[in-house]
Amino acid sequence: MKKVVTFGEILARLTPPGFKKMSQTNQLEIYYGGTETNVSVSLSVLGCKSVHVSKVSRDFLGKAALSNLKSNGVDTSFVQDGDAPLGLYFVEPGAVVRPGVISYNRNHSAFRSLEPQSIPWEEILTGADWFHWTGITPAHSENNFQALKAALVMAKEMNITVSCDPAYRTGLWQYGRKAVDVLQELVALSDVFIGGAEQFNELLGSDFSLSDADFTKGSIVLKAAFPKLGNIYDKTRTGKNASWHQIEARMWNGEAFFSCEPIEITHIVDRIGTGDAFAAGIIFGELNNYSEQRTLAFANAACAIKHTIEGDANLADFNEINQIAEGNTSGRLIR
Amino acid sequence: MKKVVTFGEILARLTPPGFKKMSQTNQLEIYYGGTETNVSVSLSVLGCKSVHVSKVSRDFLGKAALSNLKSNGVDTSFVQDGDAPLGLYFVEPGAVVRPGVISYNRNHSAFRSLEPQSIPWEEILTGADWFHWTGITPAHSENNFQALKAALVMAKEMNITVSCDPAYRTGLWQYGRKAVDVLQELVALSDVFIGGAEQFNELLGSDFSLSDADFTKGSIVLKAAFPKLGNIYDKTRTGKNASWHQIEARMWNGEAFFSCEPIEITHIVDRIGTGDAFAAGIIFGELNNYSEQRTLAFANAACAIKHTIEGDANLADFNEINQIAEGNTSGRLIR
Amino acid sequence: MKKVVTFGEILARLTPPGFKKMSQTNQLEIYYGGTETNVSVSLSVLGCKSVHVSKVSRDFLGKAALSNLKSNGVDTSFVQDGDAPLGLYFVEPGAVVRPGVISYNRNHSAFRSLEPQSIPWEEILTGADWFHWTGITPAHSENNFQALKAALVMAKEMNITVSCDPAYRTGLWQYGRKAVDVLQELVALSDVFIGGAEQFNELLGSDFSLSDADFTKGSIVLKAAFPKLGNIYDKTRTGKNASWHQIEARMWNGEAFFSCEPIEITHIVDRIGTGDAFAAGIIFGELNNYSEQRTLAFANAACAIKHTIEGDANLADFNEINQIAEGNTSGRLIR
Amino acid sequence: MKKVVTFGEILARLTPPGFKKMSQTNQLEIYYGGTETNVSVSLSVLGCKSVHVSKVSRDFLGKAALSNLKSNGVDTSFVQDGDAPLGLYFVEPGAVVRPGVISYNRNHSAFRSLEPQSIPWEEILTGADWFHWTGITPAHSENNFQALKAALVMAKEMNITVSCDPAYRTGLWQYGRKAVDVLQELVALSDVFIGGAEQFNELLGSDFSLSDADFTKGSIVLKAAFPKLGNIYDKTRTGKNASWHQIEARMWNGEAFFSCEPIEITHIVDRIGTGDAFAAGIIFGELNNYSEQRTLAFANAACAIKHTIEGDANLADFNEINQIAEGNTSGRLIR
Amino acid sequence: MKKVVTFGEILARLTPPGFKKMSQTNQLEIYYGGTETNVSVSLSVLGCKSVHVSKVSRDFLGKAALSNLKSNGVDTSFVQDGDAPLGLYFVEPGAVVRPGVISYNRNHSAFRSLEPQSIPWEEILTGADWFHWTGITPAHSENNFQALKAALVMAKEMNITVSCDPAYRTGLWQYGRKAVDVLQELVALSDVFIGGAEQFNELLGSDFSLSDADFTKGSIVLKAAFPKLGNIYDKTRTGKNASWHQIEARMWNGEAFFSCEPIEITHIVDRIGTGDAFAAGIIFGELNNYSEQRTLAFANAACAIKHTIEGDANLADFNEINQIAEGNTSGRLIR
Amino acid sequence: MKKVVTFGEILARLTPPGFKKMSQTNQLEIYYGGTETNVSVSLSVLGCKSVHVSKVSRDFLGKAALSNLKSNGVDTSFVQDGDAPLGLYFVEPGAVVRPGVISYNRNHSAFRSLEPQSIPWEEILTGADWFHWTGITPAHSENNFQALKAALVMAKEMNITVSCDPAYRTGLWQYGRKAVDVLQELVALSDVFIGGAEQFNELLGSDFSLSDADFTKGSIVLKAAFPKLGNIYDKTRTGKNASWHQIEARMWNGEAFFSCEPIEITHIVDRIGTGDAFAAGIIFGELNNYSEQRTLAFANAACAIKHTIEGDANLADFNEINQIAEGNTSGRLIR
Repeated sequence: MKKVVTFGEILARLTPPGFKKMSQTNQLEIYYGGTETNVSVSLSVLGCKSVHVSKVSRDFLGKAALSNLKSNGVDTSFVQDGDAPLGLYFVEPGAVVRPGVISYNRNHSAFRSLEPQSIPWEEILTGADWFHWTGITPAHSENNFQALKAALVMAKEMNITVSCDPAYRTGLWQYGRKAVDVLQELVALSDVFIGGAEQFNELLGSDFSLSDADFTKGSIVLKAAFPKLGNIYDKTRTGKNASWHQIEARMWNGEAFFSCEPIEITHIVDRIGTGDAFAAGIIFGELNNYSEQRTLAFANAACAIKHTIEGDANLADFNEINQIAEGNTSGRLIR
Repeated sequence: MKKVVTFGEILARLTPPGFKKMSQTNQLEIYYGGTETNVSVSLSVLGCKSVHVSKVSRDFLGKAALSNLKSNGVDTSFVQDGDAPLGLYFVEPGAVVRPGVISYNRNHSAFRSLEPQSIPWEEILTGADWFHWTGITPAHSENNFQALKAALVMAKEMNITVSCDPAYRTGLWQYGRKAVDVLQELVALSDVFIGGAEQFNELLGSDFSLSDADFTKGSIVLKAAFPKLGNIYDKTRTGKNASWHQIEARMWNGEAFFSCEPIEITHIVDRIGTGDAFAAGIIFGELNNYSEQRTLAFANAACAIKHTIEGDANLADFNEINQIAEGNTSGRLIR
Repeated sequence: MKKVVTFGEILARLTPPGFKKMSQTNQLEIYYGGTETNVSVSLSVLGCKSVHVSKVSRDFLGKAALSNLKSNGVDTSFVQDGDAPLGLYFVEPGAVVRPGVISYNRNHSAFRSLEPQSIPWEEILTGADWFHWTGITPAHSENNFQALKAALVMAKEMNITVSCDPAYRTGLWQYGRKAVDVLQELVALSDVFIGGAEQFNELLGSDFSLSDADFTKGSIVLKAAFPKLGNIYDKTRTGKNASWHQIEARMWNGEAFFSCEPIEITHIVDRIGTGDAFAAGIIFGELNNYSEQRTLAFANAACAIKHTIEGDANLADFNEINQIAEGNTSGRLIR
Repeated sequence: MKKVVTFGEILARLTPPGFKKMSQTNQLEIYYGGTETNVSVSLSVLGCKSVHVSKVSRDFLGKAALSNLKSNGVDTSFVQDGDAPLGLYFVEPGAVVRPGVISYNRNHSAFRSLEPQSIPWEEILTGADWFHWTGITPAHSENNFQALKAALVMAKEMNITVSCDPAYRTGLWQYGRKAVDVLQELVALSDVFIGGAEQFNELLGSDFSLSDADFTKGSIVLKAAFPKLGNIYDKTRTGKNASWHQIEARMWNGEAFFSCEPIEITHIVDRIGTGDAFAAGIIFGELNNYSEQRTLAFANAACAIKHTIEGDANLADFNEINQIAEGNTSGRLIR
Repeated sequence: MKKVVTFGEILARLTPPGFKKMSQTNQLEIYYGGTETNVSVSLSVLGCKSVHVSKVSRDFLGKAALSNLKSNGVDTSFVQDGDAPLGLYFVEPGAVVRPGVISYNRNHSAFRSLEPQSIPWEEILTGADWFHWTGITPAHSENNFQALKAALVMAKEMNITVSCDPAYRTGLWQYGRKAVDVLQELVALSDVFIGGAEQFNELLGSDFSLSDADFTKGSIVLKAAFPKLGNIYDKTRTGKNASWHQIEARMWNGEAFFSCEPIEITHIVDRIGTGDAFAAGIIFGELNNYSEQRTLAFANAACAIKHTIEGDANLADFNEINQIAEGNTSGRLIR
Repeated sequence: MKKVVTFGEILARLTPPGFKKMSQTNQLEIYYGGTETNVSVSLSVLGCKSVHVSKVSRDFLGKAALSNLKSNGVDTSFVQDGDAPLGLYFVEPGAVVRPGVISYNRNHSAFRSLEPQSIPWEEILTGADWFHWTGITPAHSENNFQALKAALVMAKEMNITVSCDPAYRTGLWQYGRKAVDVLQELVALSDVFIGGAEQFNELLGSDFSLSDADFTKGSIVLKAAFPKLGNIYDKTRTGKNASWHQIEARMWNGEAFFSCEPIEITHIVDRIGTGDAFAAGIIFGELNNYSEQRTLAFANAACAIKHTIEGDANLADFNEINQIAEGNTSGRLIR
């Protein structure tokens, strides 16, 4: 059983049922997520030993969040608790031409107050096969950045593979550091890169387009700039509207470009966390030494099935994902 | 802030959740609407000062209906109450090849009992920029017809622009008057016409088709018959089935024909009130002196987004509608 | 009023709401069904006198199941009760590329314990116009097989038309008999056959494909093997994914091949029981001496509308189905 | 199996969940009831053949109401349908010091439009053992009064026992007749009287108090005035508040006074229909020739258990009621 | 119509349904409240013109909160919005021996960021009859304290009566000032005091007990210390457990002690906001020049009925409260 | 951290919401429990390392059950899975005079099919401080009896304290052995006994009453018969009705009798699992070397608070229980 360590904020998502506006309802649904949390949960459901490191509120909401992670098999022994509240986000759901809207309430959360020195990274990472981080975590606070950097340094020492998804950052990066500086430092400590033109351009100050050709060119430049990096993975999405997308994946292994069959999601159930499902799929493929082609197909399938699952994390197990990865997208009832 | 006055019945809609038949559920959802009410709510959410005039039951249901209008900012000071019950309608929802079905319970409602003389139209209309009516109101009873006529006469005196949507009347018009007589009298007092071939033919005894050419021809004849009329707006809908429509809008300004980009609603959430959303969009465009093209696009966008919102009234605000009117129909998540 | 008798297990279906996984919810929806039950309910809603014969648990769950059948007008006077539990099945719903998954809990149900001798078939079948059975019932146990055989023998004596749908049997047939032997014996006692290549091949040991040509060839061979058989009906389904299917129907009347217009179900609400809705449509057409073409269209329409109705049985009435059978698949709102 | 016929309006009850005010919710619960309907359902659940005569709307709501009665075994063959809507009532629930509030919407219902001549009373009453009516039915309209009177006259001819519960009439009696005249005429045709001081005083113009002594005195006077009357039953209720009542029953058999043990309902779940549950208990006792004491205890138990059941009708079966009638009010869990 | 101005934070309450622990549910109920908000809503429902001054988040949650206030008739024209989130609190409900538990998330809310100078108190208070404040508002931040003080100074200038409820403060007062200093300054500007021994002792450094005698003594001392103060009101509560309380009220008018009949709340529905309901009752009595006795009875009744209403604010209207104030605590169903 | 091992069936409970009868609802609530499971969950929430040994179905329902245990921190590593279904029970809830009713569906469950030899008791029990069993487990099947006996023999060898709760067995014991023989054998291997007169009499063939005197006498006889037994604990319950109980606890330590303050549960939320909560409280007290008095008070408090928590297991943590054990039963809201 492979051991994967993740580090990041656990968030509670609060959202009206169905397609109601917030002012139309006196009931909300609650889910627990956070981008790294979602990766941890998905890998646990896939059969890995997932250890998630974080800090939550010391109240019943923090306990409920951990309860949710534990229900999915995630080891929460190294999650701290504190006086500040759990990070939250509210979602007003969208459909067709109406965009969903997210409003965050996380700027003074327990996670931001986490003391970098308080995390026993050596103990946590012992026996680990993989460490995953995203660009959200260092975007919160100096504390969070330092804690993440300490993890990456330790992972390097211990020869643990590190993947990064240096994306999603609207409204963050308000503690004084420039995103590009921080991310460059952290990507330099990483082995697997999940991102495309947008991330390339941020890190490199370049101007690559979303084309396959530019993905390849950008990958070459990126690997030159960050020599520790191995495989580079990207997913692309074309959307008819909020309810109907088509997804695809591609990668550059340093020598060749690979892509996979697109999958059409004609009736999206829940779009949140699909990128995290993709990342977990990549990590799972890499951990199991899948071929480039199979890893891409598996990750794309993981991303696809997450669109049909409510909540933030991909709860599909290996068989459910693998069947789609092998091309069976018929969704035919199983008796 | 523009002031808009509307007059019409407030209805409660009762409907099973999901796609259940009435016999399958012991839970119903309740929404408050009515065609003119919906216009009033939408314009209030768009930032106008909406005043809705009506009469409701004096019980907790009438209070709840007003509470709902007030929650959306509508001024209900001129809504009367009485002993008769609130008008109701039950909906068994449809999907794909299954039509939704509506059953009304409004024939002896509080609204029908409204005394025309009891409405202080002069006070209500003072400072108003617009008055809107539909063909539903004069179809109920002599009382309702007389009250509406009094409003239109007063509006004319006070130089307030009047729009009409002389549609929807199945099962009404049972109090003795002929629809065509009443509607001719009322349309003659109006400035903006929302309707197409069906309405033309009813008013004119003509036989226009749904084509653009006939819309133009019909508009010319209509304006000749009702010289006070200015712009004439129409929307058209082509439906694959109950869950998937495409909508379009067109208008005749007396000199030229305009149309806008169609919008495809691939996953309809709630079709009720989409025509009222369109009417509110027209009124908003006219009140803000939008170009013909922009008014059409805005109204079509308003109609489109209403298909994704549960309940009778369009609760989308200016930004939500305007973004679609400007061509962004991707529904991409906003963080 | 035509009288139709059916015999089979009544099952309770338990399923999470929306698209939740079982581990995500503390609420389940419960529906009552079973393949022959569904046919009985649908024919009752269509205006037939439906009598369903079965055995349920003697507890409040068995009572609730009967209550549900009675609410739809089914005569349950000949349903027995016993100590064993009601048969159950749990469904984890699917969407798009995610298959729904069924898990049964029926192996020791009250229905299996039914004593063949305890059923007064003569009394039950008196005055009946039709008897319908499926391949599920004889697949459970010797008891269930013998009881069904007794019914068919009695029906033959009493000149009651018998239809069969000898399908669906995954995981059953564990009591010692071979399916092919049992089904051959029972089909030989039947008049109307609902099934296609899959069923032909099982009964005949043949290798027909799903093509129309093979359906015709197979029908000819089948009728030769089972001379009592008259019309043979089949439905075909092509699915984009779990949420979007297209359905079609065809038949062989001994002399000619008939097919009908396909219907596209772009937004599937509930796929379970659509085959039973089709069977009920066939029986209704036959009972009312519809032409081959009209029977096919009616059955295909019944199958189509069931995709939009929650639960196991088709609750659409004659008008709802007939309008679709006549080609109106627009699903336009009825006021 | 005893056959009992009832006649009265079927109502749908719409009520917010929990203890919410109407303005606090977008969800309502729906139940089907009506005072005579409730008696019919309860007797059906107790094992009688219940036939309920009424008229409902021809829409899906009327169908759903009948579906509900049928689910409880009531024979609805003689329920007519028509264009007018189903009678409704809305309830804002109460608790402790807060009264529940009912608002009716039944003044123009399908039931009121029922044509007296259209009911085949002879056919309906053939084989019946009992007919039950309440003071609600003749309070609606001349139509309803005449239909009821015709039933009573026929019942008398056919020697069918008639019970009456001439109570509950707030806001009714608006069609021209005086309640006292009508009720005197109808009570004179009845055999079993369910009512106490309030009913005595209305019928007799007397001034009896709620005391046991006055109940006896009033019964004697009542029987003198209405010689056909046999047993007279009454229930009394003392309430700490809306959530906590104590109930008791008493009767006069023409010779002696009987009473039973009071039952304390410390946590009322649903108070509506408890009087109807009591009436059904009386009828059941009489039909089964219970002793006075046992009938009282059974009816009081039926009334008691209804306080714990949601909805309008008492769905408790014989064993559930009888155990309480025999003094076991512990409510101890049954495994 | 009396005009009442309040100032304080608007909070959203999030709570599991029924008696579930947070970890047991994926659904939460949402209510909008806040101690001063609750007073404003209750007075609006009682028929006053309520103006509430506050600051909310600029997102859809802030809009939904205002929508809720408007639905109850509160004027929200002077509510500002800002970038910080809406204040929240989570409640894990209690019952019997299990305490409910509250966890706040309000330390960095929009309300705390309110700029004192940005409030046009003169405009707001023009025409006002009453201003009400509580000890929560000045406990948040210097901003909130200064804004409140400005309101009180302005109210004094404009001769507007000021009531205070200087209670509830656990976990607040973290911005540097001592509660006693601030409260003394603000109480000195107030006319009506709602509080008892606990508040006396905090303000005076005294040691009064909860006895009636000490309430009188304390009132005398308090009035001596704060000469502007007129009537002093207090409520007392004795609780069997979390589900069953008895409440009582008393007051000192400077010359005499008054108390009222206790009311027993045997089945508490929602205890939150009952103190605010009491305060609103006091203010309503004072505004209408009720006698001391009637004001106490009205406020105690308001407090009592709030225990039966879900959510934070008392939504009972005048008749509902008054009937209890007049001694009718039977909760008898109103038809 | 103390380690506690339990062994027994995991059951899913399915129950209508509120107080509905099964025939009144299309929604059920699902909880996971089982008597030994409940003890395991409660001790985990109290801070012990709980290991539960069982066998579940291999489907999504079995996975959901384990997910629930894991969410509460229970180690499920030694839970097997198999083809047979998960054990179920349906509950129709009761209130006041109406008893709740349970209907089981567990006779052919995965747990019964468990192979005794397949459990690595030595590995499981290594490091354990406590093993707990109940009379349910050996009542199912020879398999279950042998597996339990093997655990007890191993526990004895490893000097692990064993507690037993040899109760609850209606409808079980159908595999051939006599309960008394099996229980005598298993109690002889146990150290702590949880039970009273009913259990004494079953094991000893005696006739003790429920009095304290008889509890003491019975305890003395029991200890004489089973010399390994140490402390004997019992709880008693007096119930006004299904919604209102009073609970008390007592024990005999071999030398003296102890009892504790009764606790009144005036508004029962969920009575199921209260005995298991008591057992967990006893075990927790013993593991922490509490005095007899404190153990009793703690266990009684645990039992009390479980009455207010929905679901089968006691989810209250140490502080919540301890506060009640220390006499604070006020349930006062904690901010």
